[in-house]
Amino acid sequence: MALKLYGAPMSTCTTRVMTCLHEKSVDFELVPVNLFAAEHKQPAFLAKNPFGQIPALEDNDLTLFESRAITSYVAEKFKETGTDLLRHKDLKEAALVKVWLEVESQQFHPPMSSTVYQFFVAPIQGKTPDQAIIDANLVKLGQVLDMYETKLSSTKYLAGDFYSLADLHHLSYTYYFMKTPFASLINERPHVKAWWEDITSRPAFKKVAEGMKFGGD
Amino acid sequence: MALKLYGAPMSTCTTRVMTCLHEKSVDFELVPVNLFAAEHKQPAFLAKNPFGQIPALEDNDLTLFESRAITSYVAEKFKETGTDLLRHKDLKEAALVKVWLEVESQQFHPPMSSTVYQFFVAPIQGKTPDQAIIDANLVKLGQVLDMYETKLSSTKYLAGDFYSLADLHHLSYTYYFMKTPFASLINERPHVKAWWEDITSRPAFKKVAEGMKFGGD
Ligand SMILES: N[C@@H](CCC(=O)N[C@@H](CS)C(=O)NCC(=O)O)C(=O)O
Ligand SMILES: N[C@@H](CCC(=O)N[C@@H](CS)C(=O)NCC(=O)O)C(=O)O
Repeated sequence: MALKLYGAPMSTCTTRVMTCLHEKSVDFELVPVNLFAAEHKQPAFLAKNPFGQIPALEDNDLTLFESRAITSYVAEKFKETGTDLLRHKDLKEAALVKVWLEVESQQFHPPMSSTVYQFFVAPIQGKTPDQAIIDANLVKLGQVLDMYETKLSSTKYLAGDFYSLADLHHLSYTYYFMKTPFASLINERPHVKAWWEDITSRPAFKKVAEGMKFGGD
Repeated sequence: MALKLYGAPMSTCTTRVMTCLHEKSVDFELVPVNLFAAEHKQPAFLAKNPFGQIPALEDNDLTLFESRAITSYVAEKFKETGTDLLRHKDLKEAALVKVWLEVESQQFHPPMSSTVYQFFVAPIQGKTPDQAIIDANLVKLGQVLDMYETKLSSTKYLAGDFYSLADLHHLSYTYYFMKTPFASLINERPHVKAWWEDITSRPAFKKVAEGMKFGGD
């Protein structure tokens, strides 16, 4: 049976997994979960993910949640198919992929997701974006991107001269971020900008980006 | 050559890695980095981790940082030694370990680390703990621990009836948290409390806990 991915095509966490599935050329069925109708807080979905967040993945009798756990599972289970996202044949390269996966998760994601949340999600929820929070996060994000600029001036991608899951994990949030006035944080750093253009031009992501319409743009 | 771990015995991120190395019975040398003297912001250390944070690990010519990337590397490289922290022989168990590793990283860690930071670190830096931040984080942490209580009433550990890296990752911060007045968040949830007592009684952690003295207690 094909994998079932529960989520929404405009959700950053869902598209993180979809991009990975496309890179691995793995068939899947996207089962829509309607966030606006709070379907993710209903018992049927909570049985898949008790934390009440999309996405969740079903692979026969196995149910998984947390987008980064799902991508790691997919990348490992289908390691011989499609793009080698984990560099599993080289312990050293694989270790560097792990390092940069964690950099995304621990250093990049918190300020990036807070900014995107304030800018796009807060207004939908009837809240005014908090400029002080945005400002503080942009400072942190700028510091992280300074490190990326240095790293990407010595290797083409984050973990080395190969595209990996660590690069892929950056796509979804940054795609929305690039529609804010703060896109200059990426564009003014030449190596980060070139990396961004490279990773967004991959067919696996382009297919997913078509569905990433937030707030009707 | 033995692994070299750069860090400090009272640092949560360093002890996360030390506990893992002990579980795997892997020899290592702890090379102290003096945070109070800002050694982690000096060029010698920045060459190991450009983000200027401990820990960093050297395994011959490979240098890694980010504590969770290091533990994953160690758990995988030494998968046949000591405790099997990744359940690498069973794709399904391994997948559930990945899920709960991400739950720690994305759901548990942010409110837990903010609370510990406000309570212990802010005062050392001459700042007053921000009670509003503590309160908001305790609410979030309580919600996460409600999920843990449910999960741990059906399996002995987070990913199943086996101790894994996902449990281990919780130890360091929670150990300090249990020295705050908020320890009741753990103690008032019977399955979480039993799990906590179980995982802290493991010899690998007890050895590490001896060095975890923060602010001279
Ligand atoms: N750490 C989780 C976060 C999941 C998440 O935040 N999902 C969002 C959509 S992108 C969601 O379900 N939001 C609704 C909610 O939290 O109530 C993951 O990576 O899967
Ligand atoms: N995400 C990193 C966090 C590392 C971290 O926060 N290290 C602390 C000690 S526990 C540190 O070096 N703090 C000093 C600083 O950030 O300047 C990891 O897990 O390794």
